[in-house]
Amino acid sequence: MDGSVAPGCMIGILGSGQLGRMLAMAAARLGVKSHIYAPEPGPATDVAAHFTLMPYDDVRALGEFAASVSLVTYEFENVPSETARIIAEHCPVLPGPRALATTQDRLLEKQFLNGLGIETAPYMPVDDAGSLARAVAQLGRPSILKTRRFGYDGKGQATVREGSDLPAVFCALGAAPCILEGMVPFTREVSVVAARSTDGSFAAWDVCENEHANHVLARTLVPAKIDEDTAREAIEIVHRVVDGLDYVGVIAVEMFAVGDAGGGERLLVNEIAPRVHNSGHWTIDGSVTSQFEQHIRAICGWPLGSPRRLGRIEMLNLLGDDIFRWRDFLVEAGTSLHVYGKNEARPGRKMGHVTRLFEN
Amino acid sequence: MDGSVAPGCMIGILGSGQLGRMLAMAAARLGVKSHIYAPEPGPATDVAAHFTLMPYDDVRALGEFAASVSLVTYEFENVPSETARIIAEHCPVLPGPRALATTQDRLLEKQFLNGLGIETAPYMPVDDAGSLARAVAQLGRPSILKTRRFGYDGKGQATVREGSDLPAVFCALGAAPCILEGMVPFTREVSVVAARSTDGSFAAWDVCENEHANHVLARTLVPAKIDEDTAREAIEIVHRVVDGLDYVGVIAVEMFAVGDAGGGERLLVNEIAPRVHNSGHWTIDGSVTSQFEQHIRAICGWPLGSPRRLGRIEMLNLLGDDIFRWRDFLVEAGTSLHVYGKNEARPGRKMGHVTRLFEN
Repeated sequence: MDGSVAPGCMIGILGSGQLGRMLAMAAARLGVKSHIYAPEPGPATDVAAHFTLMPYDDVRALGEFAASVSLVTYEFENVPSETARIIAEHCPVLPGPRALATTQDRLLEKQFLNGLGIETAPYMPVDDAGSLARAVAQLGRPSILKTRRFGYDGKGQATVREGSDLPAVFCALGAAPCILEGMVPFTREVSVVAARSTDGSFAAWDVCENEHANHVLARTLVPAKIDEDTAREAIEIVHRVVDGLDYVGVIAVEMFAVGDAGGGERLLVNEIAPRVHNSGHWTIDGSVTSQFEQHIRAICGWPLGSPRRLGRIEMLNLLGDDIFRWRDFLVEAGTSLHVYGKNEARPGRKMGHVTRLFEN
Repeated sequence: MDGSVAPGCMIGILGSGQLGRMLAMAAARLGVKSHIYAPEPGPATDVAAHFTLMPYDDVRALGEFAASVSLVTYEFENVPSETARIIAEHCPVLPGPRALATTQDRLLEKQFLNGLGIETAPYMPVDDAGSLARAVAQLGRPSILKTRRFGYDGKGQATVREGSDLPAVFCALGAAPCILEGMVPFTREVSVVAARSTDGSFAAWDVCENEHANHVLARTLVPAKIDEDTAREAIEIVHRVVDGLDYVGVIAVEMFAVGDAGGGERLLVNEIAPRVHNSGHWTIDGSVTSQFEQHIRAICGWPLGSPRRLGRIEMLNLLGDDIFRWRDFLVEAGTSLHVYGKNEARPGRKMGHVTRLFEN
């Protein structure tokens, strides 16, 4: 970064979903215009100064897009590496290529974490039905087969149970390169949302406790009900992760808290998301600085904002039909409603969220 | 309102300035799309789903605009009555015609207030140099001549001092219909920002204390340093105003606090703004519900949100070159920066604002 990025500039965002939407709105607060690039219109195109609707592999459109902005960021980690490479010929792509390459591949991600001495679920690479059989023999049943690439919200996953037909499970995931993960008997799922800026400065919000339903985040509570030492350790883990990736931007790290023999808890990292994250949506209403503004500050090379929490938090995702309860949430004092503006309330689709802020 | 307005709908906003921008962003949070109508592009057009750039007297463009939205609101009170009438043939205009007619004319506004038993500065209508001379004889010097219509931020005002040439002062304001106001020896300027919904429900934020420089708001402090009874009275005054206007939306009422003989304070209303207001910008970061979201809720006929304040507040306007200090404000913990995205930092121009939130 050359420091020339200032309010008035335009940034590019790959993706037109709700994360791109909330990024564009946070950018606008700071006087930064957004140019959305995506194959289809979506929640982000309604609030951005410019948008380009073209495929992610259109070299010419990508070049024109990149030439129109000071830098490019993204709302999803599955940005094709070729897309990122084409853009990078014109302007910085942040978070950078190391973060993308590492977090796009579950195997590389786990190897990276273990290399830093950070614990994960036990896992084995699976490249064919034979190696799946060996991995199951090692890790037992139930265990979870996950594609190395392109998984999110439970997509690209299958549980290997007693009696599961292993070649069928492998084929159901497209016979793609996978890893098998051993089951982790966790007591709770937590996440840390944090940011690292171009100068290496670091800021983390309080640890979030997450409840999933059908593999999709349903509810986040902050602070997580873990002891202070564990919370400090969770943030320390993320600090090592972002330093290890030379990361710039907001990151989310999902972890399992597992009861240990001494009655305490230990933490296993489940997944790294190199982007703003659903478990950080509460920061819009419940923190001095939102994760979206923090991401803009970080990628622009500006000072990070305070992650101070304004109260006790409950964030509910509004999935599918939940969105039709919007009026109930408007009636609740101290509850903030966010609606993403998607047309069709398909079952399980993330349509909006609400943040409940309680006095501490 | 027929209650059919729901998230997913589109509203119209007259005006493309920073108030329209912050209204459009608040609407987007709730899943409401905005269509901006203004003669020129501005801060609002960068964040809205649609915009029309046409004059306010283009009957055909106004009709098409109004036909595309569920209702229309505005960011400034000088909406031509003919513009409002054309739009109202297609959809509701909120706040309604009584609010517009009353607040567009300083004489009607003061008569309305006095009719409710609400005190104002002493004033007399001035229609020519002769009536100005009689008014000055009555109200003394210094006193302030103000055009009845189209004044804001000190525009359309002139002070009548010892030795002022009265016909020259009258001509300098365009020889337009005016009022002369007697000087008020106020101890402080305060404002109340509040909202009334379609069902008559009412919510007010805490009283703001305002400091002006060159007739433009420079700083707002909340809560105002007035005693509790005076604060309660200020809000009660606004409640009577909105009921009297059958008002729907956010309103701001500027008042002078004047020391009385008993050592207390009495309140004189200076001006009514039938819209979101600069002295309420702090509510974005310092209140559970922002004035912009509250306005959207009110005009859509939805329940009002909580105006609970999250801490002690200082809001600074960034005028002209102030905006170049943006990085200094980003460094301050607990300070939120807002940049409106205007191209040229002309002296005195409202370029952005910052909100400092202190723990109570």
